[in-house]
Amino acid sequence: MKISERVQMMQASPIRKLMPYANSAKEKGIHVYHLNIGQPDIETPKEMIDVYHNFSEKVLAYGPSQGLECYRENLVKYYAGHNIKLATSDIIVTTAGSEAIVFALTAVCNVGDEVLIPEPFYTNYNGFADMAGVHIKPIPTKVENGFALPEKEEIVKLLTSKTRAIMICNPGNPTGKVYSKEEVEMVASIAKEHDIFVISDEVYREFVYDGYEATSILHIPGIEDRAVMVDSVSKRYSACGARIGCIVSLNKELMAAVLKLGQARLCPPTIDQLAASACVNLPQSYFEKVNVEYKKRRDLVFNELEKIEGIVCRKPEGAFYIVAKLPVPDAEEFVIWLLNDYHVENATVMVAPAAGFYATKGAGLSEVRFAYILNENDLKKAMFIFRTGLKKFREIKGF
Amino acid sequence: MKISERVQMMQASPIRKLMPYANSAKEKGIHVYHLNIGQPDIETPKEMIDVYHNFSEKVLAYGPSQGLECYRENLVKYYAGHNIKLATSDIIVTTAGSEAIVFALTAVCNVGDEVLIPEPFYTNYNGFADMAGVHIKPIPTKVENGFALPEKEEIVKLLTSKTRAIMICNPGNPTGKVYSKEEVEMVASIAKEHDIFVISDEVYREFVYDGYEATSILHIPGIEDRAVMVDSVSKRYSACGARIGCIVSLNKELMAAVLKLGQARLCPPTIDQLAASACVNLPQSYFEKVNVEYKKRRDLVFNELEKIEGIVCRKPEGAFYIVAKLPVPDAEEFVIWLLNDYHVENATVMVAPAAGFYATKGAGLSEVRFAYILNENDLKKAMFIFRTGLKKFREIKGF
Repeated sequence: MKISERVQMMQASPIRKLMPYANSAKEKGIHVYHLNIGQPDIETPKEMIDVYHNFSEKVLAYGPSQGLECYRENLVKYYAGHNIKLATSDIIVTTAGSEAIVFALTAVCNVGDEVLIPEPFYTNYNGFADMAGVHIKPIPTKVENGFALPEKEEIVKLLTSKTRAIMICNPGNPTGKVYSKEEVEMVASIAKEHDIFVISDEVYREFVYDGYEATSILHIPGIEDRAVMVDSVSKRYSACGARIGCIVSLNKELMAAVLKLGQARLCPPTIDQLAASACVNLPQSYFEKVNVEYKKRRDLVFNELEKIEGIVCRKPEGAFYIVAKLPVPDAEEFVIWLLNDYHVENATVMVAPAAGFYATKGAGLSEVRFAYILNENDLKKAMFIFRTGLKKFREIKGF
Repeated sequence: MKISERVQMMQASPIRKLMPYANSAKEKGIHVYHLNIGQPDIETPKEMIDVYHNFSEKVLAYGPSQGLECYRENLVKYYAGHNIKLATSDIIVTTAGSEAIVFALTAVCNVGDEVLIPEPFYTNYNGFADMAGVHIKPIPTKVENGFALPEKEEIVKLLTSKTRAIMICNPGNPTGKVYSKEEVEMVASIAKEHDIFVISDEVYREFVYDGYEATSILHIPGIEDRAVMVDSVSKRYSACGARIGCIVSLNKELMAAVLKLGQARLCPPTIDQLAASACVNLPQSYFEKVNVEYKKRRDLVFNELEKIEGIVCRKPEGAFYIVAKLPVPDAEEFVIWLLNDYHVENATVMVAPAAGFYATKGAGLSEVRFAYILNENDLKKAMFIFRTGLKKFREIKGF
C-alpha cells in the first residue's frame, strides 16, 4: 500500500535522526552529554507542578476550543507586562507552539503559497510547512555577521505573487539572534508595503542577555491587521511536556478562521492549561535567576568555542543556542564520529549538525548548533570533549 | 488582510454554533440540559487522577515523538485484551483522536484525494479533511434502517481514481450504530479489491450494549497493510480533557510516515500520557458498571422517543448517541425554538441538529442527535421537556 507522496517527501527530523548513534554509544556504557536538543534542565516552577497535584475536578472534561477563559485572562495580564495590550478574544490557546504555527500557516496560506523565513531556521518549520502545504523560501543570513537580517531590498527581491507572509523567530532558534527594533520594523514595513502577513515566533522572549530586549511584532504600530504572534510556555517555564502555546492577533477575521481550525480539534489539554495559567504570577525574579544561569552557560560555551582555531562564531544575544562554523567540510560526519569513536573518561557529546536548519541545499554543512541546556559543570566537560575531539578528528582526517 | 480561501470555506462547528442561544437562555436564568455534546458526566477514574497528584519529576520534559515507551507498552497489553496483537512499534501516541485522524488522512492522501465515509458522520471529520486538503465523499445511510451500510455494489460505485481510503466510525458517532462483523469484512474486502486503505475510528469500542461486540478493523485478516485504526482515551475513561489518542497500523511504511508528522510537532502531552497509561490496569468491572449506566440511559431516551408520534428512530447498539428524525421540516429551527421560547420549571434542553453530520446537501434536515451523557434523573426531565416541547412547537407551527 502506497502512502501519500507529500509525506514521503517530508524530511525526517535532523535533530532526532542521529539518535541511533547516541543510543548505540549509551549501550556501550558511554555517557552522552546532549547539547543537541532544546530540552532545558531548569526545574519546572513549583507553582505549575502544584496545579497537577491539586486538581480536584471529578471529570477531566473538554475545555473551550479557544482555551480556558481563566487562562486567557491570565495571558492578557502576562502580555500587558510586556507592553502588549490585548483582549482575551485576541488569544487562542493551542497545543504547544507547534500547533500555533500550523494554524497560522494554514489560516494565512493556501496550498502552494510561499512564506519567507530567515535561514537557518528551526528545523521543524519544515514539517509544519509540509503539513500546511506551504513552501518555505529562505532569506539567507550568515554566521559571519551573527545572522543579522540582510538589507531590505535583498528580502524584497525574494517576494513573488505567491508570498503570503514573512515568518521570523525572535529571539532565534537556532541562531540565538535577537533582532534589533530596526530589524523588526524593517520586516513590518515589507509586510505593509507588499500586503502580506508577518508571523513572529516569540517563544524565547524571556531569554535575552547583556541588556538586549526582544521586540515583539505586536510592539510595532500600524500593522495590527497583519501581525500574527505565536508563543509557548515550553521554554519559558521549562515545561516542554505540557504542550501549551497560543496564537495571538488583532485581526478578527484571522482569529475567527483560527477558531474554526481550533474547533475541529476540539481543545488543548485541560489540566496543562491550568498549570500554565498558574505561572503568570511568577515574580520577575524567577526569570532573572534563570537568565543569570543561562548567561553563564552561554559565556562558557562561547569562550570554549573561541579557543578553537578556525572556528567562526558570534556571541548570540538570546535563546539558549549557539551556531558555530567548524573547520571541517561536513559537520555531520564529525558529530557521528564523536558519538562512535571519541570519548573522554567514558563520556562523549552530541550536538546538532546545522545543515538541517537551512533550506538552501549545501548551506550550513560545516556548522553545528549547541543548546546550552546543561549545568555549568557538565557543560565544561562537554565542551572539553568537543574541543579536544575536534582537534583529534582534524588530525585523523588531515583537515 | 485576506485570510486563506481554504479556511474561509471551512464550516464552523455545527455542534458549537448554536451555543449563543444556550448562553442567552442561561443569562435569563434558565437551566439548559445539554444533550448536544459528547462530554460524558462519568467520573474520571481515580487511578488516572492519582497520576496527576503524584507527578514527581523535577522537569516537565518532552517525551518521544511516538509517545512514552511505558505507555505504548501498556497499550500493547490493552489491545491484547481486545484480541488485537501488536508491538509497540505499531502504535504512535497522538494528541487525542483528532490528531490521529489528521495524521491518518495526511499520510494516506495527497491534497485533492478522496475518502469515502458513511454519512451521517462525526462532524469534525469535515475539519480534519479540510486541514488535510482531502475531500469527503459520503456513503449514504438512513435512520429508517438504523444506519446500516448499503450493499457492497452501492459503495463500490462511489469509488473514483482519487479515492484513497474508506473511513468508518465503529461504534458510530452520531448514529450509535455498531457494524456487524460482516459489514466490517465487506468494507475490508472493498479496500482489498480496490487497493485503498481503511481508516477505522474506534474510540467508542467499550460502549456496546445488549451483547453486541465491536469489531476492530485489526480483527480482519488479510488487510494488515491497509488497515489504520485511530483511538482515544477521551470517552473510554471520561477524560476528554487529557487529549490522548493513538494511531495504530501494521503497515511499517505508513507508521514511518506518521512518525515524521509526529516529529514535526515534537510530542503529545507528557503527564496526560502517564495518566492514560495508569488506566490500562482498570478492571473489566469498571467498564461493566459504566455500560450498565449508559444502557439504562439509552433505554430511557429511546423509550421516551418512542412515545412521540411521527418520530423515526431505531435503537442503537453502541456509543452514547441516538439520532432521531422528527416530524418537523427543519430540526434546527426547533432546537433554537426550544432554547429561546420553551421551558418547563425554568429549564430547557439542547440537542444537536443532525444536518451538520451529513455531507449531502439537504440530508438530515429533520434529524437531531441526542448525547445521553446526563444522569437518569436529569435525562428524564430533559426528555420530558423535549417531548412536550415538540408537541407544542408542532401545534404552534401547524405541522
